[in-house]
Amino acid sequence: MATIKDIANRLGVSVSTVSKGLNGASDISDELRQMVLDTAVEMGYSTKRSRKKENRKLCIFIENMSYESIDEFGYDIVLGFKQNAFRHKWNVEIIPVTPAFQDEERYDTFLLKNGFCGALLLGFALHDPWMKQLEKTTMPTVLLDNFISNNPNVCYIGTDNYEGIALAVSHLLTLGHRSIAFLNGSLYSMVTDQRQEAFENAMKAAELPLNKDQVAFGYYVADSAKYHVPGFLAAGATAIVCGNDLIAQGVIEECVRRGFSVPEDISVIGFDDIPVAAAFDPPLTTIRQERNEIGRCAYISLNSLINHIPISKTLLRPKLIVRESTERVKE
Amino acid sequence: MATIKDIANRLGVSVSTVSKGLNGASDISDELRQMVLDTAVEMGYSTKRSRKKENRKLCIFIENMSYESIDEFGYDIVLGFKQNAFRHKWNVEIIPVTPAFQDEERYDTFLLKNGFCGALLLGFALHDPWMKQLEKTTMPTVLLDNFISNNPNVCYIGTDNYEGIALAVSHLLTLGHRSIAFLNGSLYSMVTDQRQEAFENAMKAAELPLNKDQVAFGYYVADSAKYHVPGFLAAGATAIVCGNDLIAQGVIEECVRRGFSVPEDISVIGFDDIPVAAAFDPPLTTIRQERNEIGRCAYISLNSLINHIPISKTLLRPKLIVRESTERVKE
Repeated sequence: MATIKDIANRLGVSVSTVSKGLNGASDISDELRQMVLDTAVEMGYSTKRSRKKENRKLCIFIENMSYESIDEFGYDIVLGFKQNAFRHKWNVEIIPVTPAFQDEERYDTFLLKNGFCGALLLGFALHDPWMKQLEKTTMPTVLLDNFISNNPNVCYIGTDNYEGIALAVSHLLTLGHRSIAFLNGSLYSMVTDQRQEAFENAMKAAELPLNKDQVAFGYYVADSAKYHVPGFLAAGATAIVCGNDLIAQGVIEECVRRGFSVPEDISVIGFDDIPVAAAFDPPLTTIRQERNEIGRCAYISLNSLINHIPISKTLLRPKLIVRESTERVKE
Repeated sequence: MATIKDIANRLGVSVSTVSKGLNGASDISDELRQMVLDTAVEMGYSTKRSRKKENRKLCIFIENMSYESIDEFGYDIVLGFKQNAFRHKWNVEIIPVTPAFQDEERYDTFLLKNGFCGALLLGFALHDPWMKQLEKTTMPTVLLDNFISNNPNVCYIGTDNYEGIALAVSHLLTLGHRSIAFLNGSLYSMVTDQRQEAFENAMKAAELPLNKDQVAFGYYVADSAKYHVPGFLAAGATAIVCGNDLIAQGVIEECVRRGFSVPEDISVIGFDDIPVAAAFDPPLTTIRQERNEIGRCAYISLNSLINHIPISKTLLRPKLIVRESTERVKE
């Protein structure tokens, strides 16, 4: 692990200059400061700022995820993380990011420059610029729903998608359904891949054929439904498993638009149990992700990484919530 | 969730009798006490004992694992668990168990009767009597190296075996080995299954054939080696991946006995990094399991379950430790 002295030697400047650069002092130039930071990151320097009280700062980076209102998916995750972090005397900043923002500055440099001891990343996609950098980051980092191999500074947190989809299919099988369609979420997402594999496993375990006309990828929005539901209905599906609750909302609307009643003609099951799912018409049967608990565990994992415990994965149990959008198949 | 009153009603006795039965008071008969406990378990009653200071008791059940000396595999796991538990004011009891002991008493009843709020289980095999009961247990339970589906009261903790074996094979590939054998541990173990799958995946990813003569299951002891090493050598293996360090020790001895030098003729890599691995002749290259950290995380997971956070899995990173039992393949 590089020290301040190593960085000073490499740059041919004094230790106090490096220290000023790392601590954001105003009496060195921006250019020199950036050079100090970039060199520090490149040499694998990481701070022990967490010991100083005023520097106990963690960061939540958010992309592609709504979190500001209590009805939104990210709200409880952020809340759970903050609740646990505050109790342990950490400050937490929330920073929404875009791919362009990630292109502008290196991940480690950003954290170092702003005095963060670690970060939780929500909603990142596999092709995001920072994802590649996470393979080598030296900063304690917890990633929701994404996994980075072989880097002990990064941990994956999420819900067990395999068990979640297995619960959904098993619920439908118990209700007598045999012709089950799956409208998954966006491609290029680890969560989507896992749910796809889980669906295929569950159908295979039930000795049901995988009908190509009954499996599709959409996006994690309601609008996906109109492109795929007509095909599912034409292929004789009696039940549709959805990649999330928003997709399920679109699926219900599309079924109704085409003269099919939910659940009388078609059972529909979602994933997530967002707060509004109970207010859908009909109230949605879904697989609940315990978002507050995900946030709380994300803090625990991040704190473990900061304390050099190389946690790799923390998964929470999904839970089947039975409401009124599923019922026994018609004979 | 059943209450004391529910149990009293079911048995037709007073609330105070049930309370005495649950709390181990001496003024009711053993027979009545057992009936109270069995009924409590059957009705899904679980205590909130953790709030009473004198009842903050956790339990570690151990089977098939040595832990009493600092050289043994389980020592650091137990230590890490206790360190974290003591800091949070829990008492911890260690109870070695056998299958016969498990047959004698139900898991939940044993915990309830002895006032434990939760337990860590080390070294249990898939066919152990209590494993079946864990599918329905209402007691917070953390299982090392085993997974129970669909029960939010049970969590699996361990090292990421997939990444561990991938690291081992990748290390050997980097050294130019192409003819790699695998002497795995005992059958009927989740860990063994995962390592087997990981080995097959790693060979496939490297586009190397899986030679049936170069893959075998033994037991997690040194003695396994003599039955399988001769075949590996005859089949032209230049490197042997082992299911644990004890197997690796046996493999090295068997190679030497047959006139092969390690690492000059055959590279050998272990799994676990038990304390004596560095003292093997030659010192063993191996995949380290961070056992103290496993113990510490096991406590964190158990505490989460006690607080109704449905953690399902916590995995730690393995780490490649390069010593002298592996070297570049001879041209």
